Amino acid sequence: MSKLVIVGTVAFDAIETPFGKTDKILGGAATFIGLAASQFNVDTAVVSIVGGDFPQEYLDLLSNKNIDVSGVEIVKEGKTFFWSGKYHNDMNTRDTLATELNVLADFNPVVPENYKDADVVMLGNLHPIVQMAVLEQMNKKPKMVILDTMNFWMDCALDELKTVIKKVDVIAINDEEARQLTGEYSLVVAARKIHDMGPKYVVIKKGEHGALLFHNENVFFAPALPLEEVFDPTGAGDTFAGGFAGYLAKTEDYSFENMKNAVIYGSTLASFCVEKFGTERMKKLEHREVHQRLQQFKQLTQFEIELA
Amino acid sequence: MSKLVIVGTVAFDAIETPFGKTDKILGGAATFIGLAASQFNVDTAVVSIVGGDFPQEYLDLLSNKNIDVSGVEIVKEGKTFFWSGKYHNDMNTRDTLATELNVLADFNPVVPENYKDADVVMLGNLHPIVQMAVLEQMNKKPKMVILDTMNFWMDCALDELKTVIKKVDVIAINDEEARQLTGEYSLVVAARKIHDMGPKYVVIKKGEHGALLFHNENVFFAPALPLEEVFDPTGAGDTFAGGFAGYLAKTEDYSFENMKNAVIYGSTLASFCVEKFGTERMKKLEHREVHQRLQQFKQLTQFEIELA
Repeated sequence: MSKLVIVGTVAFDAIETPFGKTDKILGGAATFIGLAASQFNVDTAVVSIVGGDFPQEYLDLLSNKNIDVSGVEIVKEGKTFFWSGKYHNDMNTRDTLATELNVLADFNPVVPENYKDADVVMLGNLHPIVQMAVLEQMNKKPKMVILDTMNFWMDCALDELKTVIKKVDVIAINDEEARQLTGEYSLVVAARKIHDMGPKYVVIKKGEHGALLFHNENVFFAPALPLEEVFDPTGAGDTFAGGFAGYLAKTEDYSFENMKNAVIYGSTLASFCVEKFGTERMKKLEHREVHQRLQQFKQLTQFEIELA
Repeated sequence: MSKLVIVGTVAFDAIETPFGKTDKILGGAATFIGLAASQFNVDTAVVSIVGGDFPQEYLDLLSNKNIDVSGVEIVKEGKTFFWSGKYHNDMNTRDTLATELNVLADFNPVVPENYKDADVVMLGNLHPIVQMAVLEQMNKKPKMVILDTMNFWMDCALDELKTVIKKVDVIAINDEEARQLTGEYSLVVAARKIHDMGPKYVVIKKGEHGALLFHNENVFFAPALPLEEVFDPTGAGDTFAGGFAGYLAKTEDYSFENMKNAVIYGSTLASFCVEKFGTERMKKLEHREVHQRLQQFKQLTQFEIELA
């Protein structure tokens, strides 16, 4: 079984949606990615940083999912990264109310020795220099490096971002970010331009409108499951990425055909994530529920056409 | 083989997109529906009205596709319905520049005698009273009545619209219209409420984001084909509806499973419609091209998942 290394934030979130609001709760890209990937029982480590204010029970939650947290640095005198946001009524847009970098400002990631030969590396949304530092610590070329990023880094660290983009196999970004990165409105054209920047595979996440996977002239599309109610979209994109990475690490098949399944798994897990605040749904998610929902995805998308 | 009756506008359009603009060209809901349905060689009639200014060659174009136009009334001294619109850069939104009802203001549809027993009736976007008048002329209950409508009728003829909605089997409307009709943001909840208004099947069109088909607790989703470039979206929704209706009339199988295929056919045909201005692409579309693109749809959406 493959090893999976995840780098990203482990953090506090405070979230407000039309359905309610939370105090500081467990959040962070690496947290959501790790929880999603834990569905596949692959040998997973999280590389991150937290402050002395971070509850041990949150780290235990990850450990209890068999995630190695020895790469999570604890800065006793520091404070944990904090993000606060408020979603609009349509749940597709949000305002950031607060971003406190805290310990993240001086984060030098350290990949645990026994994960430096991991097959799959998931670079969660972070400064591209931090993402690059993780890649440089790997002592053999990973079979698959997956990158997530956001518009913020395109605005303030574009050169560093392009350097790391050149080194990855898969990039997973949302539609607006793909457009910003390339200056192209058509996602087909944008994907081709991003492909030319390095990644063999381009995943464009469209939130409630699903996700597209591009590879040369091939395209695959997975819808988001139509839900009665999206309770809290926080972490859905990271959960998608974690399901994608975890499935590939588990199956050790990096073909386009199998990557389609990884996208479906990612979408399936993301559909759970949004059902409750923060990590609430993901931390209790059972295999059985995932398999049931995969059946729903099949019914949602599969057809047997007769040519007419 | 089933008969198909289509009621809707046969009209002039003048269109402006970021790619160019047209003079008055052939347009209208029934035109696009008819051209799409003509792919299936079903016995089709269009019921509509035009003015003395409408070129015979446009009617011939429909006749040459084996569409019966004896139900298209020609008001010699009248002018044909005219719509003009300008698309924004994102191609998802448009401004209406002109709407001249002309002969449409006094349209009393007359279904040709030999089509009053049609199995499939497609009520294109028109005043709900006109749609109802067509239904009332049918001398046996059609197997499938499909309704398209728009927000305009919700604003100014809601009661009449609800009366006709009660009588149809399938309603096809876009996401914003579904939300307006029900006051629900969630499309799942909106579809359930519309279902309660009468239609057993609810199709919600999301433009470039695909289409959803709801039937009781079942949901099916078809994406729009990701295109390099959408040249002109005019008629895409009608083309979708025409493909949907034509496929059902051809196959005479009104099950949910077969309706999935009808949605896929509708999406496939719509993906051609937007490639050129107006009806330009559809009027020359060949069977062979449609079958090729159906293969692309399969590759885009079909997967063989291994549970992990």
